[in-house]
Amino acid sequence: MQNETKSDSPALILVRPQMGENIGASARAMANFNLMDLSLVAPRDGWPSESAKANAVGALDLINPVEVFNTTKDALKSYTTVYATTARPRDMRKKTFDMRATVKDITTRHQNGEKCAILFGGERAGLSNDDVSLAHHIITIPTNPDFSSINLGQSVLLFAYEWFQATHEGAPPTLPQNSAPPASHEIWDELMQRLESELKTHNFFRTPDMQPTMMRNIRNLFSRAQMSEQETKTMHGIISALIGKKINSQ
Amino acid sequence: MQNETKSDSPALILVRPQMGENIGASARAMANFNLMDLSLVAPRDGWPSESAKANAVGALDLINPVEVFNTTKDALKSYTTVYATTARPRDMRKKTFDMRATVKDITTRHQNGEKCAILFGGERAGLSNDDVSLAHHIITIPTNPDFSSINLGQSVLLFAYEWFQATHEGAPPTLPQNSAPPASHEIWDELMQRLESELKTHNFFRTPDMQPTMMRNIRNLFSRAQMSEQETKTMHGIISALIGKKINSQ
Repeated sequence: MQNETKSDSPALILVRPQMGENIGASARAMANFNLMDLSLVAPRDGWPSESAKANAVGALDLINPVEVFNTTKDALKSYTTVYATTARPRDMRKKTFDMRATVKDITTRHQNGEKCAILFGGERAGLSNDDVSLAHHIITIPTNPDFSSINLGQSVLLFAYEWFQATHEGAPPTLPQNSAPPASHEIWDELMQRLESELKTHNFFRTPDMQPTMMRNIRNLFSRAQMSEQETKTMHGIISALIGKKINSQ
Repeated sequence: MQNETKSDSPALILVRPQMGENIGASARAMANFNLMDLSLVAPRDGWPSESAKANAVGALDLINPVEVFNTTKDALKSYTTVYATTARPRDMRKKTFDMRATVKDITTRHQNGEKCAILFGGERAGLSNDDVSLAHHIITIPTNPDFSSINLGQSVLLFAYEWFQATHEGAPPTLPQNSAPPASHEIWDELMQRLESELKTHNFFRTPDMQPTMMRNIRNLFSRAQMSEQETKTMHGIISALIGKKINSQ
């Protein structure tokens, strides 16, 4: 059963987690509910962690080896669709799912050969706006508005639980998707970096301190579009054309 | 909302809980998901508990005062239907529900004026067979059979989550969205026309007959992003910058 699930299950990425307890609890919830891939971005206390191991009560031996990255961007390289969990409103235009709808969306995407990842923020402040801007969609858990904070391990548990419920129920509804292969995060990110560099060259950013905010807005716009690989090529062609460079490929 | 939920929500009864952490986490999950009534049977470390209070991060002030009993029987006195949570098979003939089905069952019973309670066992050994024998039904959470143990606080969280999902169904997740006014089609179309004209000037379209198809693809990409009006201005700024024009507004 684990082999079958392995390739089909989304990756869970904990961004700047602080307490080993929560990493351990996350691994435990994943083993409970057949999720295999856990990544950490800049865990505060490093990795491996004794307290994570203690709290995982054996779960770390059941899931795939935990991968550790320095930045969220690095952790996302091979994924085509990324979801960011947040309880706080963000000033961004993105589609918002609850956990159950997220699982349905992921299942459909996996049937079309996509690879999905979910970002969970650290205990202190959750995901940064920069992290969220890298995601295509937002996940939020409906709660009592007067008491809405859910801790890291618990958010992971609720996702894992919904994952298992859905994948062990009747097959979820499937809609045929556009068959153009979606761009990996790496390919998309190259486009964003090139755009940023050309914009800088062409004095788009009036002052250097406006650059991060403006680039976040631009990344938001282009992540929302969920570009196909072909569309990133088209955008490269557009940039090349506009800056007056000879075009080799579109 | 709390008054309304008060009489309608089932009671959660923790039987011989050991760690204040788990009592606190339970209270927290209940406050997250609008459950009001928590009872304890023979808590190992007595009540009140400092560690429960610390882990509840304020939740104990939001739910009804915790009731404490010496025996499970005493705690159950006023309820008509009782569910016992267990991960272990018991040699008993009782109807078994998962969390989702339990919530449905409770909702129906409450409409008929019943009062329902759910028993959760302590950390070390779960509910005793004597405890389970007092319940009408069994609740079990479907899990990976090779790793099925779920801790007390997590079981309570999953029940509370399903409770809120069921009682707030239909309501889409509500995170306030970016309120940036979306671009009207006219404004968006002006952007597309300008982009097309600049691309033509810059020889983006290798042959004239490729132009309609390529522009359709480009329009697809930018329509999928559902741009705000501000974002169309940003894109105008990007085009101006890339073609080396002085930028007036972004």
